[in-house]
Amino acid sequence: KPESGERTSVPGVATGLAVTGIGGDVLFVEASLADKETGHTGVTLTGQLGDVMKESAQIALSYLRSRGAELELPVGDLSERNIHIHVPAGAVPKDGPSAGVTMTTALASLLSGRPVRSEVAMTGEVSLTGRVLPIGGVKQKLLAAHRAGLTTVLLPKRNEPDLEDVPETVLKELTVHLVSDVRDVLGLALEPATSTAAIAA
Amino acid sequence: KPESGERTSVPGVATGLAVTGIGGDVLFVEASLADKETGHTGVTLTGQLGDVMKESAQIALSYLRSRGAELELPVGDLSERNIHIHVPAGAVPKDGPSAGVTMTTALASLLSGRPVRSEVAMTGEVSLTGRVLPIGGVKQKLLAAHRAGLTTVLLPKRNEPDLEDVPETVLKELTVHLVSDVRDVLGLALEPATSTAAIAA
Amino acid sequence: KPESGERTSVPGVATGLAVTGIGGDVLFVEASLADKETGHTGVTLTGQLGDVMKESAQIALSYLRSRGAELELPVGDLSERNIHIHVPAGAVPKDGPSAGVTMTTALASLLSGRPVRSEVAMTGEVSLTGRVLPIGGVKQKLLAAHRAGLTTVLLPKRNEPDLEDVPETVLKELTVHLVSDVRDVLGLALEPATSTAAIAA
Amino acid sequence: KPESGERTSVPGVATGLAVTGIGGDVLFVEASLADKETGHTGVTLTGQLGDVMKESAQIALSYLRSRGAELELPVGDLSERNIHIHVPAGAVPKDGPSAGVTMTTALASLLSGRPVRSEVAMTGEVSLTGRVLPIGGVKQKLLAAHRAGLTTVLLPKRNEPDLEDVPETVLKELTVHLVSDVRDVLGLALEPATSTAAIAA
Amino acid sequence: KPESGERTSVPGVATGLAVTGIGGDVLFVEASLADKETGHTGVTLTGQLGDVMKESAQIALSYLRSRGAELELPVGDLSERNIHIHVPAGAVPKDGPSAGVTMTTALASLLSGRPVRSEVAMTGEVSLTGRVLPIGGVKQKLLAAHRAGLTTVLLPKRNEPDLEDVPETVLKELTVHLVSDVRDVLGLALEPATSTAAIAA
Amino acid sequence: KPESGERTSVPGVATGLAVTGIGGDVLFVEASLADKETGHTGVTLTGQLGDVMKESAQIALSYLRSRGAELELPVGDLSERNIHIHVPAGAVPKDGPSAGVTMTTALASLLSGRPVRSEVAMTGEVSLTGRVLPIGGVKQKLLAAHRAGLTTVLLPKRNEPDLEDVPETVLKELTVHLVSDVRDVLGLALEPATSTAAIAA
Ligand SMILES: [Ca+2]
Ligand SMILES: [Ca+2]
Ligand SMILES: [Ca+2]
Ligand SMILES: [Ca+2]
Ligand SMILES: [Ca+2]
Ligand SMILES: [Ca+2]
Ligand SMILES: [Ca+2]
Ligand SMILES: [Ca+2]
Ligand SMILES: [Ca+2]
Ligand SMILES: [Ca+2]
Ligand SMILES: [Ca+2]
Ligand SMILES: [Ca+2]
Repeated sequence: KPESGERTSVPGVATGLAVTGIGGDVLFVEASLADKETGHTGVTLTGQLGDVMKESAQIALSYLRSRGAELELPVGDLSERNIHIHVPAGAVPKDGPSAGVTMTTALASLLSGRPVRSEVAMTGEVSLTGRVLPIGGVKQKLLAAHRAGLTTVLLPKRNEPDLEDVPETVLKELTVHLVSDVRDVLGLALEPATSTAAIAA
Repeated sequence: KPESGERTSVPGVATGLAVTGIGGDVLFVEASLADKETGHTGVTLTGQLGDVMKESAQIALSYLRSRGAELELPVGDLSERNIHIHVPAGAVPKDGPSAGVTMTTALASLLSGRPVRSEVAMTGEVSLTGRVLPIGGVKQKLLAAHRAGLTTVLLPKRNEPDLEDVPETVLKELTVHLVSDVRDVLGLALEPATSTAAIAA
Repeated sequence: KPESGERTSVPGVATGLAVTGIGGDVLFVEASLADKETGHTGVTLTGQLGDVMKESAQIALSYLRSRGAELELPVGDLSERNIHIHVPAGAVPKDGPSAGVTMTTALASLLSGRPVRSEVAMTGEVSLTGRVLPIGGVKQKLLAAHRAGLTTVLLPKRNEPDLEDVPETVLKELTVHLVSDVRDVLGLALEPATSTAAIAA
Repeated sequence: KPESGERTSVPGVATGLAVTGIGGDVLFVEASLADKETGHTGVTLTGQLGDVMKESAQIALSYLRSRGAELELPVGDLSERNIHIHVPAGAVPKDGPSAGVTMTTALASLLSGRPVRSEVAMTGEVSLTGRVLPIGGVKQKLLAAHRAGLTTVLLPKRNEPDLEDVPETVLKELTVHLVSDVRDVLGLALEPATSTAAIAA
Repeated sequence: KPESGERTSVPGVATGLAVTGIGGDVLFVEASLADKETGHTGVTLTGQLGDVMKESAQIALSYLRSRGAELELPVGDLSERNIHIHVPAGAVPKDGPSAGVTMTTALASLLSGRPVRSEVAMTGEVSLTGRVLPIGGVKQKLLAAHRAGLTTVLLPKRNEPDLEDVPETVLKELTVHLVSDVRDVLGLALEPATSTAAIAA
Repeated sequence: KPESGERTSVPGVATGLAVTGIGGDVLFVEASLADKETGHTGVTLTGQLGDVMKESAQIALSYLRSRGAELELPVGDLSERNIHIHVPAGAVPKDGPSAGVTMTTALASLLSGRPVRSEVAMTGEVSLTGRVLPIGGVKQKLLAAHRAGLTTVLLPKRNEPDLEDVPETVLKELTVHLVSDVRDVLGLALEPATSTAAIAA
C-alpha cells in the first residue's frame, strides 16, 4: 500500500513530485488552519523552504484569495485563521517553483474539506492567474511516482514533449493528465464533496 | 497565435519586454487583488524580483495612489485588498527599472477591469510623477516582441534614437508608439471599457 | 534518582533525547505561559535553537492550534497568553527536527496541567498532521536515556529497524514504545488528569 | 529648454546637484502623497538610495513635522497619507547628505502646492534644526547646473570659499545664493502661492 | 566602601559576576520601567549583549510573567510599561547565560521596590521553570567578588565542587549560599519590604 | 564667536566632545519632537550612529521615561510625538557611549524648553539609573573644547585623574565640573526656565 494513502487520508495534504540530487522523490505538502478560538492569524511556512518555494506558497494563497469565491471555497477562513504550510522532512532544504500545484491543491483540499485522491501525484508551477507553467525533471518525477505506487500523475501541458523520455513500461502503468489551468488540477485531484465534508484541520 | 493572447485574456496581465543574458524576451506582469472577504491587505511581490524591480512596483503603486482618482480608477481598493504582483517564471531572477510601464499597466488594467490589448508589448522606466524614462536593450526587445508575434510596441520617447539599430524588416511589421507620460501608455494599452467590465481578479 | 524527576515535577516540561558530537544526551524542553494579567502575547523561543528546531516548535504549536480542541486542551490560551519554549542549557546551540514530539508534549502538558511522567524520554519528528516521522541516532539516544536512569522511551515506528543496533543489556532495561501518531505520544507520556490539575505555569 | 522646466512643472519636484564618478550631474527629487482614499500611510523611499541619503529624507521629514506648522504647511497630511520620495534614475545607486535641501524643498512644494522654480538648482546638507551644512563638489555641481541650462543655484554659506574654484565664465551666468537656514532655501525656490494652488500630488 | 553600595542604593540594580579575558569582574544589571504616562511599552535590552545573554533576559521576564503572581509581584506592570535592562559599561560586549539570576533579581527588585542587598553578588543560569543551572569561572568570579569588597555570594548548587579551587583565604571572608531555585536567590538578595517601599524606577 | 552659540540657540541642541582619528572634536546632538498634529510616533536616530551610540540614545530616553516626572519634564510627549535625535555631519560614522550625557541633555532641553548654555560642552557615558560613567580621550576632548571657544566642560568624576594630562594653559581657561549623576549635568547645562519657555521643537 503506498504511503500516500495514509498521508492524504485527511483534507489538507497533497502528494507532489520533486527532483533531488540523486533522482526523483515523492513529497507531501501539508496545510492546516488554526482553530478560530486560538485567535491566531497570518501565514506560517516550514520545511526549510527556499525563497522560490516560499513565493510559490504566496502565489497559491493569492490565487485562492482572488479566485476562491468562484471556486466556492470559504476564503474568509484565509484571514481569520492562521494558515500553516509544511513540507516534511523538516531537516531537508527544498526549493523551486514546481510545488505550486501541490500547494494550491493542499490548500483547496483543506478549505473544501475534500481529501486529495491518494493515487494522484502532481507537479507544476502556478502563475498568479492560475496557469500551470512547465517544470523540469519529468522523467525522474514519473519514475518516483511509479516507484511509490501512485497511478495518476498531473503534469503541465507544456511538458508534454518530455514524456518521450519516460520508459514505456512506466508510462503504461500511469495515467498522465496534461493540465494548463490549476482549476483542472483541482477537479482531477480532489475527492468529491460529501454531505458530511467539513473543514477538519 | 501569440502566447500573449491567452495570458492577457483577463484584466491584470500586461506584456513586457526584457533583456536576458542571451537576447531579448517577453515577460508577463500579473497582478491580483485579494477578495475583500479574505480581509487580506498589504502588497506582495514575487518572481525573484531584484531591489530595483521591487522599487518599480512601489513607484507604480504610488503613482496610482496619488493620481489614480484623476484616472477614474477605484484607488480605494489599493488599501482594502491585498495587491499581489508576480512575474513568471518563478525561478528566474529579474531586475531593473524597465518594467515600470508594464507594472503600472497591469495594475490599471486590474483596477479598471479593462484587459490589456493582446498585441501590445511595452518597456520603460516610470518616475513618480508618471514620466516615462529611457531604458536599454531596445534592439533586443523589439526583436523579441516580433518573434513572439506581437505587433505593437510602446517605447520611451527618449529611446527614439535607438530605433536606428533595429532591422528595417522588423520595424516594418511593428507599430512603435513613442511615449513620455504613462497616461499615454494606459490609453494605448488598455482595451476600451465595456458596460460589463468589472474587477475580475 | 534521575534528574528528570525533579525537572518534570511541574507541568510544561518534557524529557527529550539528542545526539551531540560525542554521543547521546538527555535534554529538557520547558514551556511556560505568561500570566494573563501581564497582557503579553506571542511566541518566544530560546536556547540557541537552529532554524529547523524553531520550525519544529512552530509545527508543534500549529498542531495544537488546529487539533487541540479534539484533544480537549484549552487552545484559547495559545493566543491570549505568551508562550515561551526554552531548551537549556542556554549557551549550547541545538538543531534538528527530532525534538518535535518533546515540544508537542511539553506544550500539551502545560495546557492540560498534567505533568509528564518522569520515567519517560522521547524522540521523533512531528508532521503538521501529527504523524511521527523517523529520526537519527537511535542507538546513542537509547544509551543516553539508560545512563540517565530513564526507563521508558517513545520512538517513531519507522525507526524500529534501528533497535537492532542497541545492546541487548540496555534494551532489556528499557520499555520502548513505537509510535506513529503524536496522540499516542501524549497518551503514553502525560500523567493522568487529577481533579486538582490546573495550569500552573 | 532645460529638462528641469518639464520635470518641475508639478508641485513636489525639486532640482538637485550631485557628484558622480565622472563629474557633476543634475538630479530630480520627486515626492508624492497617496490619495487619502487609499488609506495608505507611512514613508516609501526609492531610487537605490544609500544609508546616508535615506537619513537625509528622514531629517527632511522630521524638520517639516516639527517646524512645518510655523511654515504654514498642512503637516497633518504627513501622517494621514503615505509619503513617497523617489530619485530617478531607478537603477543608479545614490548616497550622501547633500540632497537634504532638495528633499526638504520637494516636500514643502508638495505640501504647499507651490511648484519649484524651474531655473533653480540646489545642494546642501540639512540639520534637524534646519541649518544648511557644507557639502563637497561645488565646482562640478555648478558646472553641471550651467550645462543643464539652470540659472540660479542655492549653496551652503559655508561653501562660499569653494566658489573660487569655479570658472569665471560659468559664475557670470549663474545667480548663486548662499544660504544658512533651510527657510531661506524655501523662500528662494518655491514659486509664489496662487489662489488656486492646492495639493496636486 | 564597595562600589556596589552606591550602585544598588535604588531598586532595580543587582550585582553580578562575570569572567573576562583576564580574570573575573563585577557587573551591574540595571532595570527600569517607563513612567506609565509615557505610554511606552515593550522590552529594551542594551549593553552590547550577545544572543545568549539576550535570551537570558527573555527567560527572566517569562519566569516573572508566569510565576510573578505567586511571588506577589505586580506583574501587570510588565506589559503596561516599557522594561529596559542595561548592563554597563556600554561599549563592552557581553555574552553567556550566567547573568540569569542577576537579571531576574534586578527585575524582581524593581517590581517589588525592595533594593538588592549591597553586600551580595550572584551568578547562575536560570531555566524557564526557575531552576538555577551551573556556570563556569567560579574561582575567578569569587576572587572578583572578594576584590570588590562584597561579602556574600550566591552560587548554583551544582557548582559546589568548584569551590575546592577557591583559595581558603578568600572563602573564609565570603559567605557562599548554594542555590537551586531562583526563589532562594530572591529571598537571599532582596532587602526586606518596608512599609514605604514603592516602585521607584 | 563660537559656533556653539548659533547651534544651541534653540532648545534641543547640546554640545558634546568626541575623539576622532586625528584628535578631538566638537559635535552637536540635535533633538526634535514631531508636531502632535502629524500623529507621528516612535524614535528616529540618524547621523550614521553605530550600535553603541544608538544604545546610548535608548538609555537617555529610558532614563527620562522612568525619572522624567521627578525632573518635572513633560514625559507624556515622549510617547505621543515622534522623537528624532540627529548628530551632524550626516555622512560621518560615529560610535561609542560617551555622548550619553549630551543626548540626555539635548532631550531634557527639548522637553523643558530651556536652551543649553552655549559655553558648555560635555562628555560622559550615562547608566540607566543616571550615573555618569568614565570615558576616554579626556585630553583631546578638552583641547577641542578650548579650540572651539567653549569655556565650561562637564566631565565624569571618575575621569578626574585624566586632567593631569591636560596642559595647564588650557585648563586655566576652562571651568571643569566633575559630575557623577546626570541630574548634575542638567543643572549645570540648561539655562534657567523663563516664564515664556515652551517646547519649541
Ligand atoms: Ca534564493
Ligand atoms: Ca485520500
Ligand atoms: Ca540590488
Ligand atoms: Ca487581451
Ligand atoms: Ca539552518
Ligand atoms: Ca513527573
Ligand atoms: Ca552606508
Ligand atoms: Ca516650475
Ligand atoms: Ca551568538
Ligand atoms: Ca542596597
Ligand atoms: Ca557594533
Ligand atoms: Ca544657548
